[in-house]
Amino acid sequence: MSTVTIVGSGRMARGIAIRMLHARCQVRILGRNGEQTRTLVEELGPGAQGGYPGESIDGHVVVLAIPYADIRELVLEYGSGLDGKIVVDISNPVDVAGFDRLLTPPGTSSAEQTAELLGGRADVVKAFNTVFSGTLQEGRVAGEPLDVFLAGDSEQAKAVISRLVAGSGLRPVDAGPLRRSRELEAMMLLVMGLQVGDAHPHFNWDTALKILP
Amino acid sequence: MSTVTIVGSGRMARGIAIRMLHARCQVRILGRNGEQTRTLVEELGPGAQGGYPGESIDGHVVVLAIPYADIRELVLEYGSGLDGKIVVDISNPVDVAGFDRLLTPPGTSSAEQTAELLGGRADVVKAFNTVFSGTLQEGRVAGEPLDVFLAGDSEQAKAVISRLVAGSGLRPVDAGPLRRSRELEAMMLLVMGLQVGDAHPHFNWDTALKILP
Repeated sequence: MSTVTIVGSGRMARGIAIRMLHARCQVRILGRNGEQTRTLVEELGPGAQGGYPGESIDGHVVVLAIPYADIRELVLEYGSGLDGKIVVDISNPVDVAGFDRLLTPPGTSSAEQTAELLGGRADVVKAFNTVFSGTLQEGRVAGEPLDVFLAGDSEQAKAVISRLVAGSGLRPVDAGPLRRSRELEAMMLLVMGLQVGDAHPHFNWDTALKILP
Repeated sequence: MSTVTIVGSGRMARGIAIRMLHARCQVRILGRNGEQTRTLVEELGPGAQGGYPGESIDGHVVVLAIPYADIRELVLEYGSGLDGKIVVDISNPVDVAGFDRLLTPPGTSSAEQTAELLGGRADVVKAFNTVFSGTLQEGRVAGEPLDVFLAGDSEQAKAVISRLVAGSGLRPVDAGPLRRSRELEAMMLLVMGLQVGDAHPHFNWDTALKILP
């Protein structure tokens, strides 16, 4: 049984943990907020354990369920502790004051920046940034499995994450190389803006973006 | 009854014309290829007329159903002939050799470039770039109306296009100001790449991107 380490104990950590337990993984939640982490681990039940960021990573896969602004520090803190791992970047580097711009410079993406920080010593896969935490609990929307878009330069690493996604009841959609994260992140600037804008009051962080049919 | 002028006589012109006729508009197809234009007009039947690009624009709305690379010349050719119109940019400035990059520089979009060419003398609305021509004929996917994402800086112009979209049986999704076209176009680099890639052989220019539920 594989172990998935999730750094972070917020809503996305919770949603991804629920899906990974569904995929019959062990889940380890590493959260700075000890109480929030304990509460989440208790809620998740059998298969879930807690710890603190900086503790060594069990298993091969680590999901960074932390804000874009915190990734750099976390990666530097781990140093060589992430070597050889598959690092999943789920972030949306969106300026939430206005939902009008990305925090990344044009022509790059959070996932590519994470890969650069890791200097090739770990494989970065972009995933889960296009799903909202609330929809992950159910795993379905309008009777269909959620789409989870993936991007990454290691086909092997992407295959591992694809299998976890599929095993958790969702549909993996392979968008291509890691640089496609630019479009995956741009897409969410738009979709997040729809949730807060006046034009569509019924979009309320409960939507899902899906390729049909 | 309002008239919608469509410049272009290709697949997207056809799909949009079908929807606009459904919305009980008169449709005028201005195509460089006279024979293709005549064939399309005959196929469309009552409510459709043909002509050549450069002819004066009937009605208030003109849809540029031409490739990104041809927009500049067309707009310059029209000169003041587009003044006061609502110009709909449907283009996807995607490098189709590889589907790996946009042809626009980072930090802008085809729609913004079109607006700049028009120098404020016409209102540009981005629309229809996120739907494939084949899906427009039916107007629905998996039993649901297609989503048509819109962006534009004139609320009034966007309202006109939204009404046409809704009247044609599709769902308008207002993504915000014209600069959101960057994300709408980026999204389609990704979605078009999915159609040609090996990862998803069942995606074959027949998919639709939808916000669910």
